[in-house]
Amino acid sequence: MTNALRLGVAGLGTVGASVIRLLNKHGDAIADKAGRAIKVTAVSARDKTRDRGVDLSNVAWFTDAIEMAKSSDVDVFIELMGGDFGPAEDSVRAALASGKHVVTANKALLAKHGVELAQLAEENGVSLNYEAAVAGGIPIVKTLRESMAGNEITRVYGILNGTCNYILTRMEAEGISFEDCLADAQKLGYAEADPTFDIEGNDTAHKLAILTSLAFGTKISADDVYLEGITSVTTADIKAADELGYRIKLLGVAQKTETGIEQRVHPTMVPKASAIARIDGVLNAVAVDGDFVGEIVLVGPGAGGNATASAVVGDISDVARGDLVPALGKPASKLLDYTRARMRLHEGGYYIRFAVHDRAGAFAAIAQCMADAEISLESIVQRRTGDLVEGGEMEGADIAQPVILITYETTEVAVRKALDAITATGVIAGKPQLIRIEKLS
Amino acid sequence: MTNALRLGVAGLGTVGASVIRLLNKHGDAIADKAGRAIKVTAVSARDKTRDRGVDLSNVAWFTDAIEMAKSSDVDVFIELMGGDFGPAEDSVRAALASGKHVVTANKALLAKHGVELAQLAEENGVSLNYEAAVAGGIPIVKTLRESMAGNEITRVYGILNGTCNYILTRMEAEGISFEDCLADAQKLGYAEADPTFDIEGNDTAHKLAILTSLAFGTKISADDVYLEGITSVTTADIKAADELGYRIKLLGVAQKTETGIEQRVHPTMVPKASAIARIDGVLNAVAVDGDFVGEIVLVGPGAGGNATASAVVGDISDVARGDLVPALGKPASKLLDYTRARMRLHEGGYYIRFAVHDRAGAFAAIAQCMADAEISLESIVQRRTGDLVEGGEMEGADIAQPVILITYETTEVAVRKALDAITATGVIAGKPQLIRIEKLS
Repeated sequence: MTNALRLGVAGLGTVGASVIRLLNKHGDAIADKAGRAIKVTAVSARDKTRDRGVDLSNVAWFTDAIEMAKSSDVDVFIELMGGDFGPAEDSVRAALASGKHVVTANKALLAKHGVELAQLAEENGVSLNYEAAVAGGIPIVKTLRESMAGNEITRVYGILNGTCNYILTRMEAEGISFEDCLADAQKLGYAEADPTFDIEGNDTAHKLAILTSLAFGTKISADDVYLEGITSVTTADIKAADELGYRIKLLGVAQKTETGIEQRVHPTMVPKASAIARIDGVLNAVAVDGDFVGEIVLVGPGAGGNATASAVVGDISDVARGDLVPALGKPASKLLDYTRARMRLHEGGYYIRFAVHDRAGAFAAIAQCMADAEISLESIVQRRTGDLVEGGEMEGADIAQPVILITYETTEVAVRKALDAITATGVIAGKPQLIRIEKLS
Repeated sequence: MTNALRLGVAGLGTVGASVIRLLNKHGDAIADKAGRAIKVTAVSARDKTRDRGVDLSNVAWFTDAIEMAKSSDVDVFIELMGGDFGPAEDSVRAALASGKHVVTANKALLAKHGVELAQLAEENGVSLNYEAAVAGGIPIVKTLRESMAGNEITRVYGILNGTCNYILTRMEAEGISFEDCLADAQKLGYAEADPTFDIEGNDTAHKLAILTSLAFGTKISADDVYLEGITSVTTADIKAADELGYRIKLLGVAQKTETGIEQRVHPTMVPKASAIARIDGVLNAVAVDGDFVGEIVLVGPGAGGNATASAVVGDISDVARGDLVPALGKPASKLLDYTRARMRLHEGGYYIRFAVHDRAGAFAAIAQCMADAEISLESIVQRRTGDLVEGGEMEGADIAQPVILITYETTEVAVRKALDAITATGVIAGKPQLIRIEKLS
């Protein structure tokens, strides 16, 4: 057996402590599988005195992660600090530059600097592994990077944020408002004190941008993700979706179109019978459509110290075995430029909810605007007043009555044009609600 | 770039032709990912004249697969002939012994000779990859062998046979009998002319035996799989399951118990809300419970030329990259002996359906026998006569009336004892139907 693989763990929060606990518990079994022992020889964290529930008496302490990254006593730098700049970025760069393998759970860092870091890893002949950065314990990075290597991918999509899925699941199951669900999620530790990053979709966008690159062989382009969070979803929408045969999920979707690649994160109506509709609570799920394999769906815990640690240790085990996979699936020099398919060219069905002042007159006006935009309607649903005005922007509309439209496949630009025209007629109160429908098998 | 990796493909049926088509279509992209070109340089099949829809003019033809396996012009031997003896076994052994990597889709061969072949691969410093052998396009072998390396696995289970799942799905959706569904499946090409191997569970057992070894680090022991097929499942059972909140699936389950490892294949009642209950038609699904990651579920196509080819090419790509993973996850010498947990010690809930002659008297007798065996009943369902006698062994029981019991968790030995006692009282007509209930999250 070769010498032990020496790990330096930077960041001793929940995940860092779980990684160390996992290696303590299953170290021997992992060594059998990987063909060599794996040992934490160094750690780095701000506060040396805090009790993390793991024995750190035999490891070297570094207060400076960069110093640890460069240490000749470390073979693999495990970055679990988080953040897309500062110590996380600097230490990962230092580690790669000094010929250390890097394993990280840092999606923000990858989304922002992934291509550069992949290049740096290649130049130094080391691995940059990050299974834990996307969908936690679900092995989606390995599946795209290795298992599906023989496929041309046409679409990858998923539920990539447990906080949002928890909130939407509870809104549906219990009929309670977004605000109440969020407050509860915060109490239970499923949402941060400042939940913006989750509920506005940024976290999903980071993960999606990484998946897009792996799926399509393009440079990561997180700034090109179209972004809508879940804050405007009301229980009225969820109820209407239910009656129409859908559930509402925050999806990240990346797909090839004729004009480029669409990357979009938005509340999405998914058919109840689809696999993705049935993912409840904090679970994550990722689906990939490949031209040879068809559709593969992976479901599992998207967060949590232990699930994340499982993914980190899987990555470490690959390094121990000596498997050197290009970080983004192929050499950085071969990554294609990312061509953004403009969101206005997006094609799909739409759910639109209006509050109208006077139903009879409004119907004619709305129908005319839709016809002018060449949008065909699959269904028009009238609801009793009061049914659909609990949430969001419609609250003040005392006498407004809800009308819901489901369109056949059309384009974003047509829908936007129709909504502008409808708003201009003055027949609707407030802003219309618009939720995209995703075609799923 | 290193020299091209040279493949010898043995077996040019549906899968073999798909592999060649895939490599023709995506060869350049795969070469980018794997770091070297991949080329089919030799093929072996019985009939050289048959048109397989792929150009084979530039490859060497071997009528003898063993000769091709030994050829110095081949780096990787791709075994797609099938069978657990004869040419498939002999050629795989020859390839490994002469230092060629082997990629195979052959579950029967692995289930029977996997440990020996793994040993032979190790001795010769080559890979033995077989992602396609279990659940077709689903990357479960890689997930267990690599991604979940840091976990102790407590249970692995799944729907591993598309034919059975197709039949059960249609029986439920359309209320038609097993026999009619089977005939239809044969017409559509989802079932073989001789379907025994699928419907009696042997195919599932082979796949399960391989998963068991990967999950628990034990030697493969396919002969120790407890086996019940789906031929005795009636539409009456499916209807009753539906009303009780379950669906019936043919599951392969391997789990650790106090006395050893249970491996069992049988029709199973799974809660409707579980992920596995929702896998319809020819799809496969595998779930793994790991102590750190929690539960991971993978869903996808379990068969078909293209999906299988995707898995085969994923394996080839790993070989091209130089990743050498022990075939069964760790060196063959470190595999533990398999200790069988006896089926009579199996613990779980049970669904039992009787046809009784005289309901009033029968109830008392059945209840007494259950009590004597210390089995608690969760529910007792009476059905109108006629509701539950369409299928199977109850057909002749003109005046028999159906009674269904759901037990709380008990043991197989207790249930068997109770059923024997009940049969001995003479209050039931025919053989009782027994379906195990699986606890799922």
